[in-house]
Amino acid sequence: MTLAQYPPMGWNSWDCCGAAVTEDTVRQNAEYMAKHLKAFGWEYIVIDIQWSQPTARTHSYEPFAELIMDGYGRLLPAPNRFPSAAGGNGFKPLADYIHSLGLKFGIHIMRGLPRMAAHRRLPIAGSGYTCNEAADPNSICAWNPDMYGLRSGHPGAKDYYDSIFRLYAQWGVDFIKCDDIAREYPHCEREIELISSAARSCGRDIVLSLSPGPAPLERAEHLKTYANMWRITDDFWDEWRMLKAMFERAEKWCIHAGPGHWPDADMLPVGAIRQCYENDGEDPYPGKISRRGWTQFTQAEQQTMLTLWCMIRSPLMIGGDLTKNDDFTLSLLTNGPLLDIEKKSFCAHPLYTTDKESVWIAPRADGKGCFTAAFNLSEERRTVVVDPAEIGCGAFSAVELWSRRRCDDLSAVLLQHGAAVWHMEYVR
Amino acid sequence: MTLAQYPPMGWNSWDCCGAAVTEDTVRQNAEYMAKHLKAFGWEYIVIDIQWSQPTARTHSYEPFAELIMDGYGRLLPAPNRFPSAAGGNGFKPLADYIHSLGLKFGIHIMRGLPRMAAHRRLPIAGSGYTCNEAADPNSICAWNPDMYGLRSGHPGAKDYYDSIFRLYAQWGVDFIKCDDIAREYPHCEREIELISSAARSCGRDIVLSLSPGPAPLERAEHLKTYANMWRITDDFWDEWRMLKAMFERAEKWCIHAGPGHWPDADMLPVGAIRQCYENDGEDPYPGKISRRGWTQFTQAEQQTMLTLWCMIRSPLMIGGDLTKNDDFTLSLLTNGPLLDIEKKSFCAHPLYTTDKESVWIAPRADGKGCFTAAFNLSEERRTVVVDPAEIGCGAFSAVELWSRRRCDDLSAVLLQHGAAVWHMEYVR
Amino acid sequence: MTLAQYPPMGWNSWDCCGAAVTEDTVRQNAEYMAKHLKAFGWEYIVIDIQWSQPTARTHSYEPFAELIMDGYGRLLPAPNRFPSAAGGNGFKPLADYIHSLGLKFGIHIMRGLPRMAAHRRLPIAGSGYTCNEAADPNSICAWNPDMYGLRSGHPGAKDYYDSIFRLYAQWGVDFIKCDDIAREYPHCEREIELISSAARSCGRDIVLSLSPGPAPLERAEHLKTYANMWRITDDFWDEWRMLKAMFERAEKWCIHAGPGHWPDADMLPVGAIRQCYENDGEDPYPGKISRRGWTQFTQAEQQTMLTLWCMIRSPLMIGGDLTKNDDFTLSLLTNGPLLDIEKKSFCAHPLYTTDKESVWIAPRADGKGCFTAAFNLSEERRTVVVDPAEIGCGAFSAVELWSRRRCDDLSAVLLQHGAAVWHMEYVR
Amino acid sequence: MTLAQYPPMGWNSWDCCGAAVTEDTVRQNAEYMAKHLKAFGWEYIVIDIQWSQPTARTHSYEPFAELIMDGYGRLLPAPNRFPSAAGGNGFKPLADYIHSLGLKFGIHIMRGLPRMAAHRRLPIAGSGYTCNEAADPNSICAWNPDMYGLRSGHPGAKDYYDSIFRLYAQWGVDFIKCDDIAREYPHCEREIELISSAARSCGRDIVLSLSPGPAPLERAEHLKTYANMWRITDDFWDEWRMLKAMFERAEKWCIHAGPGHWPDADMLPVGAIRQCYENDGEDPYPGKISRRGWTQFTQAEQQTMLTLWCMIRSPLMIGGDLTKNDDFTLSLLTNGPLLDIEKKSFCAHPLYTTDKESVWIAPRADGKGCFTAAFNLSEERRTVVVDPAEIGCGAFSAVELWSRRRCDDLSAVLLQHGAAVWHMEYVR
Repeated sequence: MTLAQYPPMGWNSWDCCGAAVTEDTVRQNAEYMAKHLKAFGWEYIVIDIQWSQPTARTHSYEPFAELIMDGYGRLLPAPNRFPSAAGGNGFKPLADYIHSLGLKFGIHIMRGLPRMAAHRRLPIAGSGYTCNEAADPNSICAWNPDMYGLRSGHPGAKDYYDSIFRLYAQWGVDFIKCDDIAREYPHCEREIELISSAARSCGRDIVLSLSPGPAPLERAEHLKTYANMWRITDDFWDEWRMLKAMFERAEKWCIHAGPGHWPDADMLPVGAIRQCYENDGEDPYPGKISRRGWTQFTQAEQQTMLTLWCMIRSPLMIGGDLTKNDDFTLSLLTNGPLLDIEKKSFCAHPLYTTDKESVWIAPRADGKGCFTAAFNLSEERRTVVVDPAEIGCGAFSAVELWSRRRCDDLSAVLLQHGAAVWHMEYVR
Repeated sequence: MTLAQYPPMGWNSWDCCGAAVTEDTVRQNAEYMAKHLKAFGWEYIVIDIQWSQPTARTHSYEPFAELIMDGYGRLLPAPNRFPSAAGGNGFKPLADYIHSLGLKFGIHIMRGLPRMAAHRRLPIAGSGYTCNEAADPNSICAWNPDMYGLRSGHPGAKDYYDSIFRLYAQWGVDFIKCDDIAREYPHCEREIELISSAARSCGRDIVLSLSPGPAPLERAEHLKTYANMWRITDDFWDEWRMLKAMFERAEKWCIHAGPGHWPDADMLPVGAIRQCYENDGEDPYPGKISRRGWTQFTQAEQQTMLTLWCMIRSPLMIGGDLTKNDDFTLSLLTNGPLLDIEKKSFCAHPLYTTDKESVWIAPRADGKGCFTAAFNLSEERRTVVVDPAEIGCGAFSAVELWSRRRCDDLSAVLLQHGAAVWHMEYVR
Repeated sequence: MTLAQYPPMGWNSWDCCGAAVTEDTVRQNAEYMAKHLKAFGWEYIVIDIQWSQPTARTHSYEPFAELIMDGYGRLLPAPNRFPSAAGGNGFKPLADYIHSLGLKFGIHIMRGLPRMAAHRRLPIAGSGYTCNEAADPNSICAWNPDMYGLRSGHPGAKDYYDSIFRLYAQWGVDFIKCDDIAREYPHCEREIELISSAARSCGRDIVLSLSPGPAPLERAEHLKTYANMWRITDDFWDEWRMLKAMFERAEKWCIHAGPGHWPDADMLPVGAIRQCYENDGEDPYPGKISRRGWTQFTQAEQQTMLTLWCMIRSPLMIGGDLTKNDDFTLSLLTNGPLLDIEKKSFCAHPLYTTDKESVWIAPRADGKGCFTAAFNLSEERRTVVVDPAEIGCGAFSAVELWSRRRCDDLSAVLLQHGAAVWHMEYVR
Repeated sequence: MTLAQYPPMGWNSWDCCGAAVTEDTVRQNAEYMAKHLKAFGWEYIVIDIQWSQPTARTHSYEPFAELIMDGYGRLLPAPNRFPSAAGGNGFKPLADYIHSLGLKFGIHIMRGLPRMAAHRRLPIAGSGYTCNEAADPNSICAWNPDMYGLRSGHPGAKDYYDSIFRLYAQWGVDFIKCDDIAREYPHCEREIELISSAARSCGRDIVLSLSPGPAPLERAEHLKTYANMWRITDDFWDEWRMLKAMFERAEKWCIHAGPGHWPDADMLPVGAIRQCYENDGEDPYPGKISRRGWTQFTQAEQQTMLTLWCMIRSPLMIGGDLTKNDDFTLSLLTNGPLLDIEKKSFCAHPLYTTDKESVWIAPRADGKGCFTAAFNLSEERRTVVVDPAEIGCGAFSAVELWSRRRCDDLSAVLLQHGAAVWHMEYVR
């Protein structure tokens, strides 16, 4: 079976914990997922950025921080935040625990190697080269101060990427979110290929996810060849304008979704997010969104988000702290018939999109029916009626998947920013 | 039933006759179509540009030519080229004849009104305004010298467009190809709306086709709302580089095809094209393609073209003089199972595209199967194998539609620039 | 002596009369100039656009107007507006009268030939070609509906331009302002050369002025070779923001002024301008400037304008109706020592320019001194002090040319938007 | 007197020594200058980039090199290359020696502070801040790997720049060439201001020169306010295409030259350049120019270069190793009447420039005459005749400054790429 045969589904620490996630939080979310969500297809537990920085406390980055690394310039979990990593264990104990729950384990990495590893001229594991030889002093990340990109034409670059993936395979990592790379074409094209090669040759199935977006549409085939998923937007947060803007992205990328390669609309900022601000007073989005620790999306908007992500078969990564879920959030994440769209549909595309509404269709890959979703993009309650003749399909019976009601036609009264989605089964 | 429920199929005079088509040629092609092609879905006979110019002889335009028009600035067929139009009959006698063959009749128009009608200050039929008031002296076509565009905000503009569509309805016109407009956003946006309104209110079903391309992708919804088909490229001719380039266009536009609104990949330059050069020595594409009167496409290229057009559900308009078809050309146009894709499929999209090959899929709208096409874009013979797992569909039986052979898998040895296309029926 | 050895100085009908100037107005202004201004170097009387249109009444243009022309497509003065032109006299009687006053006579033309001359297929005088052959149906002016540009590669184009300049030479024209051309590089480059050639070979000294601006700076050498003056901005009117913006233009163009070739900052909108609105109610600049018939510039702004124009040696063309001058306006136009800068200086350039002030210097070509101008660009009264060390010149004595006061240093208290200018004579 | 009242003249180590200059070479060139050139106005001895890197051997840079610095992150001369700097003396002994020769001493710096100083979190001298606080981890130079730019809004940034200029003042530095800054608008605008402030408040007259070019023309007034000279091109080398291209730059910048602020056309690659390749085999311009250690300019081209630099009053910095001068090179650098243009002229500008020739004029600031230069830009010998009427000046007597011949008119037979320049004295 293809790696990432279906769009990956899981939890990621960024939206709730920022750069400051701890082992305790990870374990609690994994336990919650195993108990409440696993049955619905959720399986990945992913630790996002800065796990090697002892001093990380919020969503922001500290220039010239002292990162934990081994003698080969490979970053290690900061033991003050991940106690099981003490003694050079790395993430192995934590990965083992997550596997024991029947889940899979993922981590975030940055393209390149630590700047300090280059300035200290550390050797590369299993290589005759040193970090200063492989590093490109002019290749830096625009938003994070930790790393130098690699000279992709230098043999030490391949050696370094191979060395870190060997380590991750030893730890038991199942998923890598590689950052500072997906929108960095053309200069990072070769680094993408080196990282993909390292992932595929490390001896373990590791799903490769590229961030941040927007990845360039014109490089879709390169992305499909070298990655399992890639971000189609910059960071997505709980603002309606961002959700509305995703419809245009979705139109452009929908044709590129398929087994093993998935355009990624980013994490789902639902439930308890921005929790790290209990630690610190900085606001990463001053004046833009409230920082209190709960999603600002309405329930209707969350249904619209989940419906659109499913229709275009985006990977689904929950952003909120699962242990703080309320009933609505849990109900959202356990709507089995809706989540089924991710596995059963193919060939999705928009029927039409206006300023006020958007309608999408996605046939079932087994030919037994199709899914049709209607979205209210306007600021008022709105009745949306989809004419089956516009779809062009034959006779059918339908169920609306949020209300779970059987219905005769494709019409619905939608709340402001709300959605309906019908599972249509063909009648022969 | 929606007007243009399926992509229109027919014949257009441009590729073979240029600006110099005559009534004889039109009648002969209509008779041929009625006899040999009608059964396969072909139905439109369309007279392209310059039918009102008595002196037109080739593909080129004559500045300041004396166009035939009525006292209201409405262009009329030149009687020296269309004898049945003599005595002010317009195209009615010819339309009647084509209808008598069980076919439909179409004509080309340019956006705007004749420059001479403005300079002569002619009245507009059924209006209190005159042509000079409705015409915009600064709105001209970049490549044709005959017309002024209209001041879309002036009431005379609506009156003029309504006046010509009333005339066309009286003649019995079923299809209008309106030129100098589809790529002229934003300044022609309002003229598109006026023309659409005139077509819809003229009392007769008239399919509205907009040229030339490339129409702007970001205005897809406007085009879907106001036109039945619109060109997605500039003029398409029998050159491989143009055909290869269509794959990229196809990717961008495929999601916008649907009942009543079809992205148009332009005429099919097959068989006897560029026939007007018997009349005149000018070469519209000097140094680029041979001008001898036959398509330069190989048979493999023609199969690729027709397969791609069908898979994306482009309208099909034959460019060659049908009466001179050879056996191959006729066989191409009478491949019923292939042409069925236009009516039976929906939701087409590319599976992947590389420099060397492209694979497309299109589910059947009735859920009974899907179509898969494989194209060899390389310069060598090439074996293409499509893994059904990449499509994601279930068990099936397949027939390849060019060879009409039943097959167990989706693999084919393709000639340089050639194609295979499978009809896959699901096995339950 | 070089034609246009110094920057031309005169009067132009546009600012006061728009497209509607009449013979009476021209004669009255010529008489005024002869009496009051000629002694200060003013000499050209120029009739601006639309003198062949009988119906022109304001600053705006009438599409498809019936222009007066001869049988060769050459425009003639409309006799209802220029009575002396009746009977095919053209502008000869008026030119004779102006010459009799000791002045010179100029007219405006548009690039190209009348659209109607092409549609009527008129012959070109002294040529085997016809107007429709020489005209380019796709070359139109963006803002005036009368003309088609010429196919510069067609021999009829040269014939047409030669034919009109022969006529102008017969009339006694001394100055041609050719419009729709100076900013139309690159497509009008060859037409500029044809017009220049026609002017130089017509048998009479005719100064050639090109409009409208902005002419492209990077074609400065072409302009210097083929024209005597060319506009460096779009139309200039009595608004401070336009005057302020001229400082930046002046910096870019100042190095290109010299005998025979002068960058042109456009007419001086002083005194009685916009007089044609007594005829008609349309406002060419709605909501932007008052249309009452007098300049909106303050006296300080007018001094700044005239000072800057003189320092950069721009041609000076008065825009107001001279016969309605008040004392201030007359005093402005008769400041001899200031106007002397046009003839005595060279090598002007800015010393510095800030948001609040600008200082310019211009040496005397005879080495006896230099001119220094200081401008207050701010919204408040302001003291400007120029340090002679920044100029780098030696000992001098100075006179300020607006106050005509002798002074020891280069300092002045300047009104909002005001200017001072010193004539510094070197002390040996 | 204004600092840099006239354009600075001197010697710079880059063209001959690259990043690898040594104290011996500097002392020898200073001694040569004192003996042979000082009398003609040459005075600055400038040590270019990488003087703190012990391992520098060519024109290229070594990533992650160990730079010599003090405990405050201030770079110090590498004692293995500058022995007198041992024991923490810095450049003081060398500066003292150069001053003892009657010359002035300059050094190169990069914008920002050493990367290692930030990663080591060194304190800033005389400040409460540390290098990691003042450094911006995202502000790096595109071509040199040593430094981080400063957070110009952080008070530590001002402290750091003040701390290095205090040190330079103690050493006796008279001239700073600050690199990675002149073309880095807008993001380095504030750093320019901080550096300018540090230079002006350090207690010693230090000329501030900004590199590399092209500096943005639209920021000319900012440059004039904060710097004494700034580069108008990228690095200039001994290639005719670069020299020819300087004529266009010269046109744009000539109006901005004046006491204290000089547009800089870069070093003069004359005589013995590229000497460092005796040390190492790398070629910085592979395939472009010969690397043998002598200028590739013809004698005519060198005269053209020096003439143009003088006419636009560019600073003059000799690039060749003076001790290896041949007679021609020395004669070039000791043409007193030519070099006088730098001090005596003002208001230079081009008279005209064609593909084949360019003529420039520059009045004398004392009004006693002017300079006229004629350049042959063509590939053949060419006679250039300048008509004094085009200049507009009065009667004169002239001397051509390369031949030193008195002449009656401004005409010369110029070699391919050659120049003539006349000193014209007005006859009263």
